Amino acid sequence: MLVPHAARALGQVLGERLSRAKSDLEQHGRSESHFPTCPPEAVAYPETAEEVARIMQICADHRCPVIGWGAGTSLEGHGLAVSGGIVVDFSRMNKVLEIRPADMDVTVQPGVTRQALNEELRATGLFFPVDPGANASLGGMAMTRASGTTTVRYGSMRDNVLGMQVVLADGRTIRTGSRARKTAAGYDLTALMIGSEGTLGLVTELTLKLHGIPEATSAGICAFPRIEDAVNAVIDTIQMGLPMARIEFVDAATARAFNAYAGMDMAEAPHLLVEFHGSPDGVAQDAARFAEIVADHGGSAFEWSSRPEERNALWAMRHNAYYAVLALRPGARAVVTDICVPISRLATAVEETQADIAASPIPGPILGHVGDGNFHAILLIDPDQPAERDAALALSHRMAERALRLGGTCTGEHGVGIGKRRYMQAEHGHGWTIMGSLKQALDPMNLLNPGKLVPDA
Amino acid sequence: MLVPHAARALGQVLGERLSRAKSDLEQHGRSESHFPTCPPEAVAYPETAEEVARIMQICADHRCPVIGWGAGTSLEGHGLAVSGGIVVDFSRMNKVLEIRPADMDVTVQPGVTRQALNEELRATGLFFPVDPGANASLGGMAMTRASGTTTVRYGSMRDNVLGMQVVLADGRTIRTGSRARKTAAGYDLTALMIGSEGTLGLVTELTLKLHGIPEATSAGICAFPRIEDAVNAVIDTIQMGLPMARIEFVDAATARAFNAYAGMDMAEAPHLLVEFHGSPDGVAQDAARFAEIVADHGGSAFEWSSRPEERNALWAMRHNAYYAVLALRPGARAVVTDICVPISRLATAVEETQADIAASPIPGPILGHVGDGNFHAILLIDPDQPAERDAALALSHRMAERALRLGGTCTGEHGVGIGKRRYMQAEHGHGWTIMGSLKQALDPMNLLNPGKLVPDA
Repeated sequence: MLVPHAARALGQVLGERLSRAKSDLEQHGRSESHFPTCPPEAVAYPETAEEVARIMQICADHRCPVIGWGAGTSLEGHGLAVSGGIVVDFSRMNKVLEIRPADMDVTVQPGVTRQALNEELRATGLFFPVDPGANASLGGMAMTRASGTTTVRYGSMRDNVLGMQVVLADGRTIRTGSRARKTAAGYDLTALMIGSEGTLGLVTELTLKLHGIPEATSAGICAFPRIEDAVNAVIDTIQMGLPMARIEFVDAATARAFNAYAGMDMAEAPHLLVEFHGSPDGVAQDAARFAEIVADHGGSAFEWSSRPEERNALWAMRHNAYYAVLALRPGARAVVTDICVPISRLATAVEETQADIAASPIPGPILGHVGDGNFHAILLIDPDQPAERDAALALSHRMAERALRLGGTCTGEHGVGIGKRRYMQAEHGHGWTIMGSLKQALDPMNLLNPGKLVPDA
Repeated sequence: MLVPHAARALGQVLGERLSRAKSDLEQHGRSESHFPTCPPEAVAYPETAEEVARIMQICADHRCPVIGWGAGTSLEGHGLAVSGGIVVDFSRMNKVLEIRPADMDVTVQPGVTRQALNEELRATGLFFPVDPGANASLGGMAMTRASGTTTVRYGSMRDNVLGMQVVLADGRTIRTGSRARKTAAGYDLTALMIGSEGTLGLVTELTLKLHGIPEATSAGICAFPRIEDAVNAVIDTIQMGLPMARIEFVDAATARAFNAYAGMDMAEAPHLLVEFHGSPDGVAQDAARFAEIVADHGGSAFEWSSRPEERNALWAMRHNAYYAVLALRPGARAVVTDICVPISRLATAVEETQADIAASPIPGPILGHVGDGNFHAILLIDPDQPAERDAALALSHRMAERALRLGGTCTGEHGVGIGKRRYMQAEHGHGWTIMGSLKQALDPMNLLNPGKLVPDA
């Protein structure tokens, strides 16, 4: 709880950048999902790492919970103040601190969004590839181990953060990792922090790997008779070592949504959307070889293009999938699920999920990052019908159980937050207790984002 | 200490697979490096994960230190029983448990060596890429976060382990990770274990990512006037996005060693050895583009070949570099150093190191994984001259300090063990204390490989 004495001390550090305005609290108590609003007691807007450390020290002195906040795009309620306390909003720590083209890395403050970073990088010929769809903050992306459409080629946040500066629960600051591309010097504190969802520390700086903007890009789309055929085409593509930059699956219902929303003319069938990065000859060859694989699996002619306007239209459509699907049912809200399985089990997982949704009272188009075995159902519910919300949560529950049964994970990229905490015991067994021990070691007073990810102390 | 009661209990579990034979103890008390022999009190040879858990439970009951042992190829004394106790030798846990070609993964016991695994995989068209040179065990490679010549393309153990089964200090067993290619479900216990050097648990099973054997491979070699030119060629190559599978640097002294040892006819100049993986057209184009970059930096004609016998000769030479260098000075022993810096600082780091070695009384050819910024000096000392050993350790010390000054790490791939522990405070600051807190949380009695990696409790 934020006691008056702590509020005064925070006010002395932050002045007007400590807000207790109702609108601010409301705004930082909402999530982009189906969880009830849960506002914090104050919102702090630090501008420096030193201020973050001071905030943490004051909160530690007064046992006040502290919750990090990036762009607020989490889908699992990561930022909700379920035990009260303050939210630390990093939006004013939004500077790109240093770009080092020769090393292909960059140091940023945590409030920089991925789009803002790529904007700043434009002149360098480099880009930051991790793309979760939303224009999330890089600090938030690190803390939720974000990934997305390009992960099959460039990896997730786990693979693209070289090091961090982190304020710990006692207010001390550490640096993890280094600017070396690899190291064998002790425990991987960077990896421990990535995906820890603000429960172990507050990130105040990140050093990220960059990649060269490819000389050429080819992208295309094709339809398949059955989900299984699309998935088998992906397996063959991976096994042949074709370097896909993106390979996305959409089901027939999603294709229908694209047709209605974006005036497309897609067959109402499972599709793959694919992109290759490389030299002009290379991407043409990759596309040609992929077309052969598609044909082998009964797919439609693989129509591809290296023209930017056509490629951009394709990925704009994919990025707008959420809104296209939402438009299928005016007035609906979405419950977005997120599981990931070994790719050999992907067709089974998608087909079982489709059948489960078909037997339910609500629609739920399916799409996903098929190269990683990760997919989502966008379950459309009438917010005024509790029975629909229950049906959606029951479907989501069975998806998580299905993922675990098939050797996968209850969350491929959205994280645990409060939405997936109930599956942690089933997924990790005694490992979840170990996560609790690690939390206890670094945050014995349970001040950092309490009520999330780990077991109750 | 191994008290008689504990020895009896272990003997009941293991029978003759608990050895106290002097030769066995000696063999497990040596390292491949300059550290004095330090034998354990017994060597256990478990055959199952259950036996490992029983061993750990007995040792926890009697507070006996436990040290994991793979192939014994560590260069930093990781396996030395500096506080007594028993070594658990995983050589009998050497089964490949399941290969899943569609998922491109494999589950193995920790005693399987990387060469044995690739032998078993031969018929599948898949391979495991991490190659530290030595034929290390996969459990040992995970525990030291091994990497090597192919890391620039395929990553290190950090990037190629999907999950593990681990016996903890209290004898409980956990599974980390899953077979999903990515997950956002909680703390990354897999990454925490990788590189933990047996101080947090004993690995009893690993699930590894596999990669498709490339359809075609091209490899070649070229000389440069100066180290700086070679490094700049590498930077350009990376920035252009040419997908090098290997890019290795050797200095003029190493080239001289190759000439003498393998009857080569290399210029006594800095060289790059390079390999590309892909389609036949692709690797030819990559080689041609690389040749242009080499020419831009004043390099010699890039001679390349896609013929297996020529490629194999090239990499056999690289893999035998240690012996070639050792042969430069008959009767010498080697102190092998290992630092990694941001690539923009690599030329500086190598040149300063060369000058430092030139001013010392001992020879020390330099070579390394230049695409990662990681290099080694092989310092050749007369084992009967303590002054030479001291000079080598002083050079190694200055290299570690140089790496930290240039934004890098004191160990790129060999690990901490006992050799690099003295630099952990300088490299990690308060982060090293945090590593100690994590160790304390998971192993409060300090039974697992005590005296290594973390601060003294």
